[in-house]
Amino acid sequence: MKPILFKWPLSASLPYQVEFYTLEKGFVEPNYDMHAAVHFVILLQGSLEKWKNKYDFFLSSAWEIHGKTYSRTGATLLVVAFLPDVLLNSVICDKEKISFFLHNPAVKYRACFLRPEVRARIRAFVEKMEFLEKEMRPNTSQKKWLEIVDFISDLVTLLDSYLPNKFSRSEYAKLEPALVKLASLENVPLSVSAAAKACFLSESHFYHLFKEFYGIPFSSYELYFRLNGAASDLSGGKMNVKQAASKWGFFDASHFSRTFKKFMGIPPVKYDR
Amino acid sequence: MKPILFKWPLSASLPYQVEFYTLEKGFVEPNYDMHAAVHFVILLQGSLEKWKNKYDFFLSSAWEIHGKTYSRTGATLLVVAFLPDVLLNSVICDKEKISFFLHNPAVKYRACFLRPEVRARIRAFVEKMEFLEKEMRPNTSQKKWLEIVDFISDLVTLLDSYLPNKFSRSEYAKLEPALVKLASLENVPLSVSAAAKACFLSESHFYHLFKEFYGIPFSSYELYFRLNGAASDLSGGKMNVKQAASKWGFFDASHFSRTFKKFMGIPPVKYDR
Repeated sequence: MKPILFKWPLSASLPYQVEFYTLEKGFVEPNYDMHAAVHFVILLQGSLEKWKNKYDFFLSSAWEIHGKTYSRTGATLLVVAFLPDVLLNSVICDKEKISFFLHNPAVKYRACFLRPEVRARIRAFVEKMEFLEKEMRPNTSQKKWLEIVDFISDLVTLLDSYLPNKFSRSEYAKLEPALVKLASLENVPLSVSAAAKACFLSESHFYHLFKEFYGIPFSSYELYFRLNGAASDLSGGKMNVKQAASKWGFFDASHFSRTFKKFMGIPPVKYDR
Repeated sequence: MKPILFKWPLSASLPYQVEFYTLEKGFVEPNYDMHAAVHFVILLQGSLEKWKNKYDFFLSSAWEIHGKTYSRTGATLLVVAFLPDVLLNSVICDKEKISFFLHNPAVKYRACFLRPEVRARIRAFVEKMEFLEKEMRPNTSQKKWLEIVDFISDLVTLLDSYLPNKFSRSEYAKLEPALVKLASLENVPLSVSAAAKACFLSESHFYHLFKEFYGIPFSSYELYFRLNGAASDLSGGKMNVKQAASKWGFFDASHFSRTFKKFMGIPPVKYDR
């Protein structure tokens, strides 16, 4: 089955999306997906990989890679995506902690989401969103936003003592210039040495810091990012294979096609259909 | 009785204050008080001038003059002050309307606050604040902030059709440079002509626009602003009469003393005690 990409056309005036999704049996999310938006998914019904219980919770931090997702039974999900920087504007306390929470790969503390007090808070969030979904008021959109801010702020408070203290916010801040440079597409493919330079770090320091923070080498991260972007441009026929190959920094269309097939499972020419 | 000044030492990291005040019999607020913070007062018990009912509501917009307040019986109040610009950061919808609401002198639509649907919303706000006051949670301060944002956003929605359409947000924007210049104290006393110049308006256009917007001439507004600032510096012995006269643009200490007594009812030398 063809992988589906979630797209988040978010901006300062629309800094979030809340969607109730129903996935059919056999649904497959793409292998690699990463973006500036933070998103979280709450399981409401059915199952998804290892998740079976109502209110199972999955969070992807900003620029975090989230692997392939598969649903054998089908599933109903509440999916929320938002721009972390806009959320931080709405927050007046614990800005540093919340920023750390939104930028530090969530895979490291996923076990915390199973705690009963966290599950109770997730449940309250879902109920509030369901309520707001039904209400026909002119400022529901603002209310949903405040609920998201409140929810994230509560999560950070609840998880405070469980969050890893190995990495500090400054660790992410050190790596951020490389991610911003990569996202700008000014210089793709982006070599480790150019990325390290953008962060004012030595190549070897950058390499190790990145691997420790994201769990994979920068070169893999960089390639997944480009494949992911190319897939997005191919879907819906926005670009042809040659255009996508050029925009996303692949040497030529055939090199692009080989790499794409290797990682995405299907050739790019078929991805569009 | 000596007038009491409310002070709002607000900043981006502490953009609001919520206080339950109990005023004694015969309490008098100063004649003139204006500042960048928006504040609102909810009567919970007792009476205050024309207010007698629980949940009577009084709002002062940014830089709005609010006259002398007197309580014959004593009163319990919930007082909330906040920085409008920080509030606007936490808002994603209707920014323009909310900005207008916070900057347009509230005296013009005070009657709207008597509407039953507004009173019900005020009551819900008070109950939420009382609840949060009792709760001992680490992020209560954040929660109170979100309640204030939600409350203001709801007020604007509820009052939408009753707000004056005579003035637009652009009217305030035209006058704002004069208020900012005045607040900077770079050039006090600030003449009408210098104020008009800061706004790129002719003196006569500025004069009429200001009077229509704030209800008093700029020259009176400017004087009240300086007297108010001087009173604040005198209280608690922060400055002596001579220093305050000089900082707030009065020709000399005796001119300052005469003017102060005329408007504040007591000479500045007694104000400090």
